Amino acid sequence: MSENELLEHKRHTLAHLLAAAVMKLWPDTKRTIGPAIDNGFYFDFEFTHPLSEKDFGKIEKEMRKLLPTWTSFERSELTSDEAKKEYPNNQYKHELIDEFTADGSKVSFYKSGEYSDLCRGGHVENPKEEIASDSFKLDRIAGAYWRGDEKNPMLTRIYALAFDTKEELDQYIAMQEEALKRDHRKLGKELDLFTFSDLVGSGLPLFTPKGTVLREEIHTFSQALRTSRGFQKVWIPHITKTDLYKRSGHWDKFGDELFLVKSQETTDEFVLKPMNCPHHTQIYAGKNRSYRDLPLRFLETTAVYRDEKKGELSGLSRVRSITQDDSHVFCRPDQIEVEYQAIMNMVVEFYKVVDMKFRARLSFRDSQTPEKYFGEESLWDMAQEKLETIAKSGGFEYFIAKGEAAFYGPKIDFMATDALGREHQLATAQLDFVQPARFELTYTDSDGTEKTPVMIHLAIAGSLERFLSVYIEHTAGAFPLWVAPVQVKILPVSEKHNEYGASVFATLKNAGIRVEIDDANESLGKKIRNAKKEKIPYLFVIGDKEVEAGTVSVENRDGSEGAQELSVIVKSLQEKIIARS
Amino acid sequence: MSENELLEHKRHTLAHLLAAAVMKLWPDTKRTIGPAIDNGFYFDFEFTHPLSEKDFGKIEKEMRKLLPTWTSFERSELTSDEAKKEYPNNQYKHELIDEFTADGSKVSFYKSGEYSDLCRGGHVENPKEEIASDSFKLDRIAGAYWRGDEKNPMLTRIYALAFDTKEELDQYIAMQEEALKRDHRKLGKELDLFTFSDLVGSGLPLFTPKGTVLREEIHTFSQALRTSRGFQKVWIPHITKTDLYKRSGHWDKFGDELFLVKSQETTDEFVLKPMNCPHHTQIYAGKNRSYRDLPLRFLETTAVYRDEKKGELSGLSRVRSITQDDSHVFCRPDQIEVEYQAIMNMVVEFYKVVDMKFRARLSFRDSQTPEKYFGEESLWDMAQEKLETIAKSGGFEYFIAKGEAAFYGPKIDFMATDALGREHQLATAQLDFVQPARFELTYTDSDGTEKTPVMIHLAIAGSLERFLSVYIEHTAGAFPLWVAPVQVKILPVSEKHNEYGASVFATLKNAGIRVEIDDANESLGKKIRNAKKEKIPYLFVIGDKEVEAGTVSVENRDGSEGAQELSVIVKSLQEKIIARS
Repeated sequence: MSENELLEHKRHTLAHLLAAAVMKLWPDTKRTIGPAIDNGFYFDFEFTHPLSEKDFGKIEKEMRKLLPTWTSFERSELTSDEAKKEYPNNQYKHELIDEFTADGSKVSFYKSGEYSDLCRGGHVENPKEEIASDSFKLDRIAGAYWRGDEKNPMLTRIYALAFDTKEELDQYIAMQEEALKRDHRKLGKELDLFTFSDLVGSGLPLFTPKGTVLREEIHTFSQALRTSRGFQKVWIPHITKTDLYKRSGHWDKFGDELFLVKSQETTDEFVLKPMNCPHHTQIYAGKNRSYRDLPLRFLETTAVYRDEKKGELSGLSRVRSITQDDSHVFCRPDQIEVEYQAIMNMVVEFYKVVDMKFRARLSFRDSQTPEKYFGEESLWDMAQEKLETIAKSGGFEYFIAKGEAAFYGPKIDFMATDALGREHQLATAQLDFVQPARFELTYTDSDGTEKTPVMIHLAIAGSLERFLSVYIEHTAGAFPLWVAPVQVKILPVSEKHNEYGASVFATLKNAGIRVEIDDANESLGKKIRNAKKEKIPYLFVIGDKEVEAGTVSVENRDGSEGAQELSVIVKSLQEKIIARS
Repeated sequence: MSENELLEHKRHTLAHLLAAAVMKLWPDTKRTIGPAIDNGFYFDFEFTHPLSEKDFGKIEKEMRKLLPTWTSFERSELTSDEAKKEYPNNQYKHELIDEFTADGSKVSFYKSGEYSDLCRGGHVENPKEEIASDSFKLDRIAGAYWRGDEKNPMLTRIYALAFDTKEELDQYIAMQEEALKRDHRKLGKELDLFTFSDLVGSGLPLFTPKGTVLREEIHTFSQALRTSRGFQKVWIPHITKTDLYKRSGHWDKFGDELFLVKSQETTDEFVLKPMNCPHHTQIYAGKNRSYRDLPLRFLETTAVYRDEKKGELSGLSRVRSITQDDSHVFCRPDQIEVEYQAIMNMVVEFYKVVDMKFRARLSFRDSQTPEKYFGEESLWDMAQEKLETIAKSGGFEYFIAKGEAAFYGPKIDFMATDALGREHQLATAQLDFVQPARFELTYTDSDGTEKTPVMIHLAIAGSLERFLSVYIEHTAGAFPLWVAPVQVKILPVSEKHNEYGASVFATLKNAGIRVEIDDANESLGKKIRNAKKEKIPYLFVIGDKEVEAGTVSVENRDGSEGAQELSVIVKSLQEKIIARS
């Protein structure tokens, strides 16, 4: 049995134990079902009295009292009638029993201690020995319709957390609390990064000046990585005639998910672009290309649109207008390796700077189902081999996922891990053997023949909005200096220090540092508390001594750096900003 | 009589002269009408033989033979019957005569020399003396339906150019030829700046890497002017629920001209934004604002959408997706003057750098029709007075246009003049007393009361696409160094100089200069010709001497600058780029 299976069995066993405790405490309760879930288990009951989380202590105590008496599980088989007798007046269990015995078969019951329940199995053999009595915790109460159908009665669901050990349970609870504190929607409001408007609509965030700094810094970094490697910026409109996607094939595949745009002046049928590649092919197609012009590398940070259902929208994680740091390389097949190598280097550098580990998923074709993939088999084999060679030498974890390739080519998806250990798919680099042919893109090869280039789709941050949702939580809003919307806050101790404060402000501003000054008539303590709440990386405190000496007292997030010459600290900050540290 | 009227009379007189010459040469021709137009005149005929532009010489010669015999105009009045007798078998003239005499009145005829025609007047008194025989020129032939109705017969229209003097005529012809050479659609293709795709649609240009450099440089300059004056970048999505424009009032006014966006997943009604101000108000509204926070200055270069009729689309001049270098200032009424002064300074600086003169149109309210304007009268008066004071001290031409204000406030429109003397409205700065109230924007004033801020809408380049259409023609594609997509082209004399060429290339690239190298196996002459065609500002020629001395031979557009140390010319170019010269 795998560790995962064992944990699932523990959780399911604990669901029985919860039901046993509840039935002991309130024998009139109707019990229904109780499966294991990702972080524990739940059980649905119909109580004869309203349950509250205040009862959790009593229930847990009863569970812990019963656990030592559970030393094994006994399985038995009962006929429908026998089974129903176990649950007098419990229409829920009766309904299940009727279903399970419809073909005349018996149903299985599992019993441990004095508690027996209709069950298909999946328990630990000896609960007393195998389950630590401090490894679980009742979590919360929720309403749940019987069998998830809103026409059925509403039952009371008790959720519980359960892990192998108390340490793991505590760790999980601490992480949940931390995640709640770091929630980017909460921090977005507290740090004044973005806002929503009912008049504009859900899934359509508006970025304030501070949030726009975040967007700009991430975009500028991603762009700089690419321009230094020969990528060139292009620009495309956000709408297009549907013809473009009919040609690319996206219309047939994603037509239902597109935002349709209606022209009232013409009969043109437009859509909001759901991706940028087809537009970029049209820039390639605007001119004759020679083998000497390749690779041609286009980059553009621009929005694509997804018509998400409202229930799926959440903060910046899932939006309707998605800004991608997108790029498309048009190259010859013999250039794939060099281009991919450069791409991997960029991804490594980016995630090093944003301080997130990642592993690469090489999404390859499944050779058992060749009909699912377009393009020449030999091209696929050659490309996949090269991608693996590159991944091998990359110094990062990777794994091959057979059958995960797109129909148009193999790809590498990068799964980044945040400070709470959660994994997010952000960057992606996809080979495309199909679109260049569909758009009849060609280049004149050295032998004078017309050939079809290969395309590589690349996004490094991925979606800026989604990346920021992860990054805000990863950093808990305490952004490193180079990203921080406000890099330095100047805190004059009292009003008489405001003049020198203003001159320090001007010096920093001229030095290209994002700076604010708090010259309100308030105590230094309050000013420092406010600035800490804003998670500003550097505070410059200015009092009599500093004015006299022409210095500033520097506080960073870790503590005091003491008084420093203004020119020295400015130079040091500039160097850190340039180094993106 | 004004000069303009006199010129119009000359042109109309010449239309008579053209008809006289035609009737002399081909007496069976049916003449119809011949008015003056902007650059000359035309006359519509029904010929019995096909006319070609080869006949122009003959016609002009006849016109010049007749002109000395035209020393006066005689007016006479004829009855319908008398008039018709003048035009045997000419159904067109008969139709006109019937119309003009329907109420029993007579029609007027004008005669000069031996030629008489139905006419309402508007000639010079003495054509022989007043019209220079070399001041006109037949221009081209076009088909034109009688009375502009396609159900009528197609007539032959002869267009002619006519000015006061030969010099003006020649100048006009030269300017037309120059305008044709500078046509941004032609240069856009030749210089590989932008392209269109049938799959994407008309009015939706795609910008190549070179064209994107133009966009970026203009945008970056316009943005730098603003960020240095306290404007902060924000970011908004391109779609919004219609609710936003219903609240702003734009829906009622422009609803028909909007691109409607249909969600297939939800019932939300969206539009593509036709302007950015309502979105920006929602960022303002996202937080409580105090009088100390104002002015708040948002900037964003972003697209708005106009559902133009296809016939109205042309190159970059008129597009469906319009990128504005937009900004919105939210300020207190007492801050209007300082804010406007800063805005005027930016506009002056921008148009100085792009080397275009401008004049300002102060678009004010008409006090005779107060019902057309929203907002307090005293606020209008105060604001208009301030705008005029600022314009007065601005050192540029301005004029007041009463009744040209928007309903929501007075504005200043800037009319820039290009190298061919054509005037274009580009920048605009508009006061807005209405939207802040509609969106219920407030700030807490120093006395604790809630007040409504004033908005200023500002665009400096205006629409980037339209600005570029003007700027490409203004510069004839010979962009100044700071804007040029390729700033330096390196031309190795032969293949053995390519290696040194590559090292020069690397040096320039590292210095942030946009550089290309032409290392093809071709003659220097051909390389130079190609580079000149691309209108690149600086060519670095590299031969034996340069390799040996570690120099480059510099050619700018005016000629040779001789051999220069690489580090010296790089530094000099960097300085020019930073100074935007």
